[in-house]
Amino acid sequence: MSYRDIHEYNQKRLELNEVVMRNAGQSMKRFWNLDGAVYREGALPEKTKELLGLVASLVLRCDDCIFYHINESFQKGASTEEIEETLSIGLIVGGSITIPHIRRAFKAWEELQAGAPAAD
Amino acid sequence: MSYRDIHEYNQKRLELNEVVMRNAGQSMKRFWNLDGAVYREGALPEKTKELLGLVASLVLRCDDCIFYHINESFQKGASTEEIEETLSIGLIVGGSITIPHIRRAFKAWEELQAGAPAAD
Amino acid sequence: MSYRDIHEYNQKRLELNEVVMRNAGQSMKRFWNLDGAVYREGALPEKTKELLGLVASLVLRCDDCIFYHINESFQKGASTEEIEETLSIGLIVGGSITIPHIRRAFKAWEELQAGAPAAD
Amino acid sequence: MSYRDIHEYNQKRLELNEVVMRNAGQSMKRFWNLDGAVYREGALPEKTKELLGLVASLVLRCDDCIFYHINESFQKGASTEEIEETLSIGLIVGGSITIPHIRRAFKAWEELQAGAPAAD
Amino acid sequence: MSYRDIHEYNQKRLELNEVVMRNAGQSMKRFWNLDGAVYREGALPEKTKELLGLVASLVLRCDDCIFYHINESFQKGASTEEIEETLSIGLIVGGSITIPHIRRAFKAWEELQAGAPAAD
Amino acid sequence: MSYRDIHEYNQKRLELNEVVMRNAGQSMKRFWNLDGAVYREGALPEKTKELLGLVASLVLRCDDCIFYHINESFQKGASTEEIEETLSIGLIVGGSITIPHIRRAFKAWEELQAGAPAAD
Repeated sequence: MSYRDIHEYNQKRLELNEVVMRNAGQSMKRFWNLDGAVYREGALPEKTKELLGLVASLVLRCDDCIFYHINESFQKGASTEEIEETLSIGLIVGGSITIPHIRRAFKAWEELQAGAPAAD
Repeated sequence: MSYRDIHEYNQKRLELNEVVMRNAGQSMKRFWNLDGAVYREGALPEKTKELLGLVASLVLRCDDCIFYHINESFQKGASTEEIEETLSIGLIVGGSITIPHIRRAFKAWEELQAGAPAAD
Repeated sequence: MSYRDIHEYNQKRLELNEVVMRNAGQSMKRFWNLDGAVYREGALPEKTKELLGLVASLVLRCDDCIFYHINESFQKGASTEEIEETLSIGLIVGGSITIPHIRRAFKAWEELQAGAPAAD
Repeated sequence: MSYRDIHEYNQKRLELNEVVMRNAGQSMKRFWNLDGAVYREGALPEKTKELLGLVASLVLRCDDCIFYHINESFQKGASTEEIEETLSIGLIVGGSITIPHIRRAFKAWEELQAGAPAAD
Repeated sequence: MSYRDIHEYNQKRLELNEVVMRNAGQSMKRFWNLDGAVYREGALPEKTKELLGLVASLVLRCDDCIFYHINESFQKGASTEEIEETLSIGLIVGGSITIPHIRRAFKAWEELQAGAPAAD
Repeated sequence: MSYRDIHEYNQKRLELNEVVMRNAGQSMKRFWNLDGAVYREGALPEKTKELLGLVASLVLRCDDCIFYHINESFQKGASTEEIEETLSIGLIVGGSITIPHIRRAFKAWEELQAGAPAAD
């Protein structure tokens, strides 16, 4: 999927989650809950957990997952340097095939820093 | 690649297959034939084979492949419950990185249930 | 990991699951439960679900997962033809890199058919 | 990401590389240099190295990487037969999940043969 | 590859790195240096960077890489809870195919806690 | 799977191929033939095709496949420099997770150069 920017991604994600929930059975719904639970503060702070989710998403080369975690990392106060170091580890672990995703990750990061899009 | 809906995917797939066939050598053409052969009825019925193709496509996170097999599963009479259970296995095996693909799979499934698009 | 045969795998798996359970937190334990739940009979019968788990494991090239599902498929009464057709779909979807795993899957299948190992 | 054609890809790639370079630290920049260095002529000629990059990109199913290397292969004088044989090896190694990428690779190849796009 | 325990892995790794260095050219050696550089303290502390390397290795299902980063995480003072939360994120992101690696990761972790092996 | 050396791999591969052929149906056997055909001389020479197979196997991180193609590359007269440049491209494309496989690839390469093992 292609998105114009991170804000369009955020909106499309919500719309499609409704499609999933209309069709999901119990196991799928329980997985959705677990997927929220593992990023909550524990021995590790929330920001670190989002960076863990970000690097995992990068090396698996999942743009939607990268957009999700870069958005959450922004909400939890990650700095540009922390994002850059996280993406650099993903680049070294996962190689040049992560580069297209790093391009889009930094584009999304700059969009988040630039603030909310103007109303349509 | 992004598609407006499953019907646009089906059309683009045919167009691009012609591009491949203009350029393909003998081995590539023989692979194309094999790719059809393994889904034909044998000890396992065709519908089950399409669900096997669907779960394999989901865990490998190939949207085009998912759209192909969800379309075939629909043609072979799979129910929404069977699709949901197949996708749930893929979700548990392949993890949250399959979620963006599950979103698009259910969207395509609903489009198939809604019927053919109006003529252009 | 290497195993002498499927029976050694089954034993090692139990031993290492105890190591996990000594260290696992709540989310990990809940995932373990979900991992059991999705293979239970629903709209699709248990045998079909194990074949879905088998093909997903093959294309992701996870020997331990293949051994697990080939064992379960055997317990649920799958025939050699059904196993072969499932592995053939995985081979076509996943390509020649699945071949080493197909070799070990059929070896495990023959070991299961030959029956339990003699006591040590 | 989706691109109208290989020419749009080439332009977007340059634009997004600037976004990366605005944010990249030293390690990321050094990786970028290494990524150029390994494709330079050595014991193997440049054309062969681009075909190695192409087949690696195909089996890892990275469209952006495929477009990059198919463009470079074109610049280094690869023939349609050499491209087809390279993609066929990728197809056999990586399986039917590479097919959507082979479709787009041949489409890009035909666009390159057709020459530069008309000015906007 | 299989290893009796984490200590055998550490030894084999050193032996095989010598084989690589006997054969490596300049680009390969420069990559080896970069691979060290990205885990050094920066905006993120070393321990966090090792956990990022660990989760990336887990979702990519690379046992040798997991053993390397779990060893480094131990040296940098990570707690069992921090390791468990990191592996839980990898499990949710990467799914049940990461389970065999989680089993071996916790086994290695317990071996590290138990201390150095007796001399041969 | 673990092997003592490349010679043990070559022997085990033949033994397990017999297990597959005892159980394989027509499609699987036809794939086996195609898997041989794509590496035969065409527009590209056999040695180049084996290097293409090697880099694809490396980035997909399949030890058995790497051993197969490194053996074939040796038979077709590849030099150490050509192997090193091929593995370097795989390392940059696929990242540090390919390192454990590069270690074993060079070990196998040195074993091939050292000649056939002594009789048992």
